[in-house]
Amino acid sequence: MPFATPVRDMQFILEHAANFDAVRDIGAYDDLSEEIIDAVLTEVAKLADNVFAPLNWTSDQQGARLENGQVYTTPGFKEAYQEYVEGGWNAVAFPEEYGGQGMPSTIALAVYDALSAACISLSMGMSLTQGAVKALLKYGTDEQKALYLPKMATAEWSGTMNLSEPHAGSDLSQLKCKAEPVGDGTFKIKGTKCWISYGDHDLTENICHLVLARLPDAPEGTKGISMFLVPKYRVNEDGSLGSRNDVNIVSIEEKLGQHGSPTCVISFGDDDDCLGTLVGKENEGLKNMFVMMNSARIDVGMQGTSASEASFQKALQYAQERPQGRPYGVRSGPQVPIYEHPDVRRQLMTMRALTDASRALGYAAAIAHDIAEKATDEDVRRAAKEREDLLTPLAKAFPTDRAMEVTNHGIQIHGGMGFVEETGAAQFYRDARITQIYEGTNGIQAIDLVGRKLGMGEGKLAFDFMDDISALSQELADSDNASLVAIGKALDTAVKELRDTTEYMIKAMSGTAEDGLAGATPYLDQFGYVAGAYYLARGAKVAAKKSAEGDDPEYHDTKVHITRFYTDNVLPRATGLIPAVKAGAETVAKLDPEKLAS
Amino acid sequence: MPFATPVRDMQFILEHAANFDAVRDIGAYDDLSEEIIDAVLTEVAKLADNVFAPLNWTSDQQGARLENGQVYTTPGFKEAYQEYVEGGWNAVAFPEEYGGQGMPSTIALAVYDALSAACISLSMGMSLTQGAVKALLKYGTDEQKALYLPKMATAEWSGTMNLSEPHAGSDLSQLKCKAEPVGDGTFKIKGTKCWISYGDHDLTENICHLVLARLPDAPEGTKGISMFLVPKYRVNEDGSLGSRNDVNIVSIEEKLGQHGSPTCVISFGDDDDCLGTLVGKENEGLKNMFVMMNSARIDVGMQGTSASEASFQKALQYAQERPQGRPYGVRSGPQVPIYEHPDVRRQLMTMRALTDASRALGYAAAIAHDIAEKATDEDVRRAAKEREDLLTPLAKAFPTDRAMEVTNHGIQIHGGMGFVEETGAAQFYRDARITQIYEGTNGIQAIDLVGRKLGMGEGKLAFDFMDDISALSQELADSDNASLVAIGKALDTAVKELRDTTEYMIKAMSGTAEDGLAGATPYLDQFGYVAGAYYLARGAKVAAKKSAEGDDPEYHDTKVHITRFYTDNVLPRATGLIPAVKAGAETVAKLDPEKLAS
Repeated sequence: MPFATPVRDMQFILEHAANFDAVRDIGAYDDLSEEIIDAVLTEVAKLADNVFAPLNWTSDQQGARLENGQVYTTPGFKEAYQEYVEGGWNAVAFPEEYGGQGMPSTIALAVYDALSAACISLSMGMSLTQGAVKALLKYGTDEQKALYLPKMATAEWSGTMNLSEPHAGSDLSQLKCKAEPVGDGTFKIKGTKCWISYGDHDLTENICHLVLARLPDAPEGTKGISMFLVPKYRVNEDGSLGSRNDVNIVSIEEKLGQHGSPTCVISFGDDDDCLGTLVGKENEGLKNMFVMMNSARIDVGMQGTSASEASFQKALQYAQERPQGRPYGVRSGPQVPIYEHPDVRRQLMTMRALTDASRALGYAAAIAHDIAEKATDEDVRRAAKEREDLLTPLAKAFPTDRAMEVTNHGIQIHGGMGFVEETGAAQFYRDARITQIYEGTNGIQAIDLVGRKLGMGEGKLAFDFMDDISALSQELADSDNASLVAIGKALDTAVKELRDTTEYMIKAMSGTAEDGLAGATPYLDQFGYVAGAYYLARGAKVAAKKSAEGDDPEYHDTKVHITRFYTDNVLPRATGLIPAVKAGAETVAKLDPEKLAS
Repeated sequence: MPFATPVRDMQFILEHAANFDAVRDIGAYDDLSEEIIDAVLTEVAKLADNVFAPLNWTSDQQGARLENGQVYTTPGFKEAYQEYVEGGWNAVAFPEEYGGQGMPSTIALAVYDALSAACISLSMGMSLTQGAVKALLKYGTDEQKALYLPKMATAEWSGTMNLSEPHAGSDLSQLKCKAEPVGDGTFKIKGTKCWISYGDHDLTENICHLVLARLPDAPEGTKGISMFLVPKYRVNEDGSLGSRNDVNIVSIEEKLGQHGSPTCVISFGDDDDCLGTLVGKENEGLKNMFVMMNSARIDVGMQGTSASEASFQKALQYAQERPQGRPYGVRSGPQVPIYEHPDVRRQLMTMRALTDASRALGYAAAIAHDIAEKATDEDVRRAAKEREDLLTPLAKAFPTDRAMEVTNHGIQIHGGMGFVEETGAAQFYRDARITQIYEGTNGIQAIDLVGRKLGMGEGKLAFDFMDDISALSQELADSDNASLVAIGKALDTAVKELRDTTEYMIKAMSGTAEDGLAGATPYLDQFGYVAGAYYLARGAKVAAKKSAEGDDPEYHDTKVHITRFYTDNVLPRATGLIPAVKAGAETVAKLDPEKLAS
């Protein structure tokens, strides 16, 4: 059985675990009924299951290739991409004036979830195009908008993000790419950029690069960086394509995974003839890019979730089909499917529970973003922005860290076959591996959480969230459903422990912050496990109610069971992380490296 | 800086963490001084560092290939293998009459550790040859020994293990391969075997397959399986090679990793002309194969350790060389090496501590094996055999599970470069992945631990071990060294918790055992973390003493620091596993798979 978009699960998590009603409640989208969302997801599922998913294995075996300066993508990508464009999928959350449907970005994220699970290396480029569109919507001039957005919103033209240079990856302050004003409002761009996903390809007739570069006499560091729009082909005033710009693809990377996604080194201005236009104000390029970064991070987190989903489905299928062994202690008789073995089910349940928690966390972050963007009440907007800020590092790191665990189980369930590439289980494990790295390594997410996010209002963002968790845990613990009571109690313990480490962390981040930084990653992990439990528990509350009302009890009981599995088996890991959070700077003292391997 | 065998670390762990004196104490090897072991390790390090390590990347890029029924290995493998043979490395632990040095198997394991870290896919086949030699030493006829052992002990001829068939992997009871007596003492073998590592290659002039097959009228199930010696080329009475046997290579697998190691499907007797001879008694083949399985499992565990070591060295090097970012809060000035960032050091320390614990566990299991084999006192032998039995599943699973975490950090520290194959960090992550699967999946190790091993004497094996741990933790807690006190207290808490879950598990494995089986893997994990802490702590005790005596304090303090890092940061994970151990059968209830993805 091939991949099938889990429309019902996605919608359950969207509506009940992540609580999409909070978006409806602000009034901007109150006609976006469950039926409409179901129709959207059912429709994108057709594209994902029938068009994208069959290309996934092909993309691994016949990845992108560079020939004479042009990148060619996997056979079939072009036709699939065309269906994506024609279906209007890129513009789901964009304004109607640019061919969009004006939906909340949460729905675009769910669409992305489906497509990414089906073929991560094809869909990953779409996230970049959407990011470029958002940048131009927010910071573009009227002219830029008029010339580029009609084509880019639909993805007829694609977009890229050009940040990194070989010596400037996580630390962009060292960026060297230059922009010289020509005098007519355009700029000559010169420099080399690396790690440019979909930096070139054959899917669209034009590619619009957003490039970070320095103007002459710009301040050093991150405050001297500006953003430029640099198209592969120049665009005439009537919107038609002009001459080729001086943008050259130097090489593409041979990667562990995502072979279908070309990762380019790009040289701008080899012949001093690379023209771009300024986006936003001078020297505000990095700040403006960071506005897009939040949603890019949520997208990357969703890639982790979607790799987990695909890996889970494949493993679940195999576990039902593969006969091997008999029940414990039974010495003869026919072999049973390995789904019968408790340890295999433990692995599958771990995969399912982590995937659901990851998905809920991603959707919840997107919901916070939509409310922060569109709520009419300023207090609601501000509270939502705070929640979005808090959840972003969690929604990036937790699903991607857990994806490595989930896809590892996905291989393991296949036994020796899992190590054979043709099986396909290993591809998810390889493809997902980059998600812990790009858009800010998960170590950087941890520092963002303990530094910037806990730093806002002395932990207000975290404590407000924990108040919500405590309220829910109390409500569940007081219910008359035994499973909800167990879930509520586990959640209550976990959130109390998180309050304690949060108080520790806020103190530990004062001064040189060395104690805090030493514990940042285990704190992020702890927070992620607790946040995942919270969203699952919110879903379980609704599921238990629906089950009690006779609404498909088997399905809804399964949702409660998955949550209970998580709080019984997974959540307690958070307790095991506490000593590491509090171990302090001394635990990672700068030892002489030569004594560490001798 | 290329890979360098960590001779000093290996010897420290061998002598002090794993306590090699226990082998000397039985009297069989009391002339095996630290100086001799140092000389052996220093010598094998030359082969590992200068000959094997440079082939590691080549083996990934130019893996084994099958052409016209013959497997050809990576360019350079043949010459490296020849040096291995000529150096006498295969026979380190074999009797002198077969060209061996009669050393304990622990020393052979340390040799294997070095070679495996340098090039896992070349060295992995050597473990199989050694296993075949052990089988013939124990069960071979005088004729088999005379004809085969002189060449096999030196590895001039290689050996393989042929167990699996497509429908019979973890469960060998379903094995179908047939053996018909010819009447002259030989047998005609017919059947297909899969997952045969080094099932064919061009490194030796002959390959000696140990094949499990059924005699006519053999009982069904595992008690009707016999072991046969089936050479690629028949061997004349004078030891010269005769005609080609009817052994055909059907295919080799395209794998996630270990591309240098050919994994074959072999067809025996396509033309009804595959001759073999019986090894051991009829119908005792599986039982006899299991005797070899223990050491094979310890070898696979060591592969995990060695992949971790290689990954760590590469990451440590990169962390010192790669400038990126500045200390937290410092906004200008030069970039610092990423080793300066606490979160990078947390990753490196986690890698180092897990690698040391893994290595100590493997060496300790081998030491128990040597004592069990060679001690003159029967009580000492029996106690050592019990310890070996207990440690084997731990020494297989813990280092291989942790290797995935360690090699994942190894990629992460390289940032985006880690995802680029040429960097080499990803290769360790791919190569190590099979170690969780072969020689019995780690799920099977968990069942072996909670079923067979806890079942012996109502947990005697585990409780005896925990008594040793408690004694050490008490001794450390009572010491006047603050670090040892902290280590001792942490170990004391952890072993008390392990006693509790062990008592639970023994009860949970009674009856249908469903509760126990549901918690087997988290129990194995918990036990592994505690056992790792115990061995590290034993080393730390010696290190603290040496440091106090002025013996290279910086080196020995580092050993204490690594142990303290482990007990402060890693060991508490064991606490977080307890609820999963005790969650019981209901937590992995057989839910309708259709409700798990809809």
